[in-house]
Amino acid sequence: MKSKNVGVILAGCGWLDGAEIQEAVCTLLALDQRGAETIVMAPDKEQMHVVDHLAEAPADGQTRNVMIESARIARGAIVDIATVDAGELDALVIPGGFGAAKNLCNFATEGPDMSVDEDVANLIRAIHSSGKPLGFICIAPAIAAKILGPDHSVEVTIGSDQGTADAIRAMGAQHIDTNPGEIHIDEANNVVSTPAYMVGPSIAKVHAGIDRLIATVLDRC
Amino acid sequence: MKSKNVGVILAGCGWLDGAEIQEAVCTLLALDQRGAETIVMAPDKEQMHVVDHLAEAPADGQTRNVMIESARIARGAIVDIATVDAGELDALVIPGGFGAAKNLCNFATEGPDMSVDEDVANLIRAIHSSGKPLGFICIAPAIAAKILGPDHSVEVTIGSDQGTADAIRAMGAQHIDTNPGEIHIDEANNVVSTPAYMVGPSIAKVHAGIDRLIATVLDRC
Repeated sequence: MKSKNVGVILAGCGWLDGAEIQEAVCTLLALDQRGAETIVMAPDKEQMHVVDHLAEAPADGQTRNVMIESARIARGAIVDIATVDAGELDALVIPGGFGAAKNLCNFATEGPDMSVDEDVANLIRAIHSSGKPLGFICIAPAIAAKILGPDHSVEVTIGSDQGTADAIRAMGAQHIDTNPGEIHIDEANNVVSTPAYMVGPSIAKVHAGIDRLIATVLDRC
Repeated sequence: MKSKNVGVILAGCGWLDGAEIQEAVCTLLALDQRGAETIVMAPDKEQMHVVDHLAEAPADGQTRNVMIESARIARGAIVDIATVDAGELDALVIPGGFGAAKNLCNFATEGPDMSVDEDVANLIRAIHSSGKPLGFICIAPAIAAKILGPDHSVEVTIGSDQGTADAIRAMGAQHIDTNPGEIHIDEANNVVSTPAYMVGPSIAKVHAGIDRLIATVLDRC
């Protein structure tokens, strides 16, 4: 059987200003364990900002590039999302971390009034319109809500944080509460989501939810 | 039963200038899945250098701190290794990546003539002398070779790279060839090692070896 090609969009390297590292690695692990080919991609642009992850405060004066930092997680095997053709992908998965809400869209600062990076939005629309599965992890379901909420009433989960759930509903999507390690499947839209570090509480449960999400996404290819 | 407290030494965040991210995350995952408490630590000092992980070339003019970058993997839950008392640990594990050979010691530039960061060396000696287990992943066994080679003839594996194996032997240690996903146990020294990305070939096998190493380290506590 031909391997499935799964796109993974990274948003930097570190949960406060980039992709949540543990979620990104659990995603790559679950895909490789099931024999999927992975196409890791990121936008080639500056991060919104750089955060000192020890002080948990912005590191003023520093700039970092989303794709170059994402390459740390991917061991260099990464491409500019602008160059990716949806036709080469069987599915698309977006791990979380504040970078998903700062570099792939601006949900972190604009809430439901956010806009989504154009390349990210176009790729999600293309995968969705061809009926292929999409996986959204942690805070990344907010991106699905913006793109697939108004016209498709997409169902997603970010766990149980009611402020974030309200913002998701404000964008035209539906929010389903879930517990650590669980996933939600929107059958009609072929969208799978898991709360990961939106609920934690630690890496074992985060891994359990992501592993289940990847298994489900691959089953639905 | 009381949880076991396992120290994990990180060396930054990225395989070319810091801790190998995938190995570090697989280590934290395997520990959490078995109910171990993890004390993540790093030296509070500048990295040897910063490498652009897309170009795979030094990023001139940039400086980054080993502990601050390691905090990206640990989600902020990290301490300065200089403050860690060996008495609070039941075991100690060191993931790989070039950072282990650049920031925890200088094997990357000095080969067998290297020196080891004093806090790293002291902690390894203290854990070893109290008979507690030590785990070394990827290139980190070179550190074990320097500290425990001359007086204890430690046995380690970095896989099958003969240049690195020769350097390990030159420091007074013994090298045992292994394949992807395997571990080697030095019963007398209570030292476990796995080649991880020294042999790859990809994250599933790397995870398999690290998972086995962590299970073995915890069994030997």
